[in-house]
Amino acid sequence: MSPPVAVLHPDSWSSPRENVASTGATILSFARTPEWVAPGLTVKQAAFLASQPQTPCVVIDVDVVGQNYNRLTDALPGVEVFYAVKANPLRPVLERLAGLGSSFDTASLPEIDSCLELGVDPSRISYGNTIKKARDIAAAHERGIGLFAFDSAEELQKIAQNAPGSKVFCRLFVENEGAQWPLSRKFGCSSAMVRELLIEADRLGLQAHGISFHVGSQQTNPEQWDVALRRVAELFVALESDGVSLGMINLGGGLPASYDLTELDAKPYGERILGQIDALFPNGRPRLLVEPGRYMTGNAGVLEAEVVLVSRKDADAEKRWVYVDAGRFNGLAETEGEAIRYPVAVVSRAGEGDALAESGPVILAGPTCDSVDILYDKAGYQLPLDLRSGDRLRFMATGAYTTTYAAVGFNGFAPITAHCV
Amino acid sequence: MSPPVAVLHPDSWSSPRENVASTGATILSFARTPEWVAPGLTVKQAAFLASQPQTPCVVIDVDVVGQNYNRLTDALPGVEVFYAVKANPLRPVLERLAGLGSSFDTASLPEIDSCLELGVDPSRISYGNTIKKARDIAAAHERGIGLFAFDSAEELQKIAQNAPGSKVFCRLFVENEGAQWPLSRKFGCSSAMVRELLIEADRLGLQAHGISFHVGSQQTNPEQWDVALRRVAELFVALESDGVSLGMINLGGGLPASYDLTELDAKPYGERILGQIDALFPNGRPRLLVEPGRYMTGNAGVLEAEVVLVSRKDADAEKRWVYVDAGRFNGLAETEGEAIRYPVAVVSRAGEGDALAESGPVILAGPTCDSVDILYDKAGYQLPLDLRSGDRLRFMATGAYTTTYAAVGFNGFAPITAHCV
Repeated sequence: MSPPVAVLHPDSWSSPRENVASTGATILSFARTPEWVAPGLTVKQAAFLASQPQTPCVVIDVDVVGQNYNRLTDALPGVEVFYAVKANPLRPVLERLAGLGSSFDTASLPEIDSCLELGVDPSRISYGNTIKKARDIAAAHERGIGLFAFDSAEELQKIAQNAPGSKVFCRLFVENEGAQWPLSRKFGCSSAMVRELLIEADRLGLQAHGISFHVGSQQTNPEQWDVALRRVAELFVALESDGVSLGMINLGGGLPASYDLTELDAKPYGERILGQIDALFPNGRPRLLVEPGRYMTGNAGVLEAEVVLVSRKDADAEKRWVYVDAGRFNGLAETEGEAIRYPVAVVSRAGEGDALAESGPVILAGPTCDSVDILYDKAGYQLPLDLRSGDRLRFMATGAYTTTYAAVGFNGFAPITAHCV
Repeated sequence: MSPPVAVLHPDSWSSPRENVASTGATILSFARTPEWVAPGLTVKQAAFLASQPQTPCVVIDVDVVGQNYNRLTDALPGVEVFYAVKANPLRPVLERLAGLGSSFDTASLPEIDSCLELGVDPSRISYGNTIKKARDIAAAHERGIGLFAFDSAEELQKIAQNAPGSKVFCRLFVENEGAQWPLSRKFGCSSAMVRELLIEADRLGLQAHGISFHVGSQQTNPEQWDVALRRVAELFVALESDGVSLGMINLGGGLPASYDLTELDAKPYGERILGQIDALFPNGRPRLLVEPGRYMTGNAGVLEAEVVLVSRKDADAEKRWVYVDAGRFNGLAETEGEAIRYPVAVVSRAGEGDALAESGPVILAGPTCDSVDILYDKAGYQLPLDLRSGDRLRFMATGAYTTTYAAVGFNGFAPITAHCV
């Protein structure tokens, strides 16, 4: 799979509305010629980037976030959306989602406070990290948070002591086959332990509310939810026989963001998941939650970087090295292991005509003196042969897991700037 | 190689001077019984940590930095030390080194400015990143910086245009066998290209000053410098025949920090390197530079973290998961791939006696909801069986590449705090 390369034309951007053609609600393409199609850039992003802001920067179009939310609630009717704040906690993103009625899945006390500051009711916030300090649980409880995740005996004890009477859900470990960014065994526990711990939760005076799972980030196979749901349904039955009635399934995240810039379509996922639930719970659906992060913000961002250097290590080296001012330590952390392959667009130089330059293979790397600060080597990216320092690249679909990952000052470089449009 | 586990005793710390025994200049051990030996903690660090500062934090003893500097200049007489600022740019660290006469290797304009602000003369600063924006080269030149690294034709052009007349050195690519943190092919070019580019540098009106190389970070085999030096000597001869007289060898970094907490000994490295240079350059040594980073600050820091959770994924799971409040995104970035294995000490609880608890295997992980935020799995760490949340762990030898690597706010967590003592 060769990543897409596109040449954009800054001279079009002075009036982007005239030069772009809509291929969907906000997924726009430069349409002068088919070769130059660069889907994924919105009119607002194009207009902002026309001013050549200082690089590196991420430009988030919050309208896209809103559209993703609406598309998801259409695809999953009756399912409560808890946006995973960690994916992108920028205030305008949270504001837009709060306004649309989203709930929020949080990983820490500062994330909880970000939501509360916007006026989100505590009942719409879950403390979804299974790893919490006792004092942070207490502080969340004091703020009115009443829904907590856990996956271990010690965490359950901490919640019982510091947030008595709260609703809790236990995270079940499931395999992540088919996920582009599979999760490790870091989260979740066995079915046997889920059962044991939910009985214990009940005994400790907590409300044994339900079960969560996560099929892996960027899960491209809708059938992966089937396996997990069957195990959840078995646990519901088993716990009922233990005298513990569960009421909720947290479907986790995993819905893929559109890294290949095709239209997002959550419908097939939604139909399959809800169909499976209806088959497994013939007496009626339990309360259903979903925790999208990447799905909600991934395609809402574009990261613009400047080429700092193009070099060959030897006169006859086939691959060029292309160093840009955004790397693994200031925005592109998820290129680790070349797992997430962002589409890369080349911004052509003003006044240099429309010809698509001939391309050749490159290794893309970040600007630091750190040898692991390499973005793509094996992924097979190709960039124009006439690329040179000062040119600008756009990493598309970089709205999730970019800004907050950036290092405070590694090698002296400032963290990446984020702009919401 | 099983990582060391030590149990420290906070009740000793009220008067650490009485309870610690020096085993070197500042490498101190808790010496109540041999089992409790925890080398690597200094009196000043112990005193500071006795106050139980908020975790996670790194405590740097700048005296250790100073001693490392002196030890290095003893081991490499006549070699100019250019401290690699990126390893730890905290102001007290730079101040101490500046006061001792160190020069500075910088990766960016902000690092250059950090040094200049301390009153360091521009002649003692090199701009050692081979990847620089043209405008940053110009800004450095304007500030009086006159020594620049490069490894490609385009970079050389940028330097010639933006810092005319400057001294330049070209980075030669050498293999990194024997390095615990081997560098990729990101930096350096072939011998043939080094020769060609230094001739070109001369032609462009720059001073073709010398050649640099890097044997890989944490290089444990002193013989690795031999190979590189032979190639450098050949290039000196070849370039002399081209009419270009070089005057400098930059030996790079690579001197290992003491991650196993044994006494640092740079002497064998120094003797071998200088002996080799004398053999290769019988008419006299060229100017010699060295760029230590990790060596200078690695063993000067201790990172204290709090255990947030200890769990088993299944009732009969052998390995426990130990989650701490410092992870790959707030201080311990170099655990990536389990490359750097920090010694971990457990701080025992006040008033719970001196018995060393029985230990068992653990997976150590950070506090975020990110599945790659795992510190050590395969490395085989063991921690006490009675470990529980609220306990404190110390990651020893964490003075280099920790504070600046921390993310600005991933998962809402603040970057790690640094204290200099």
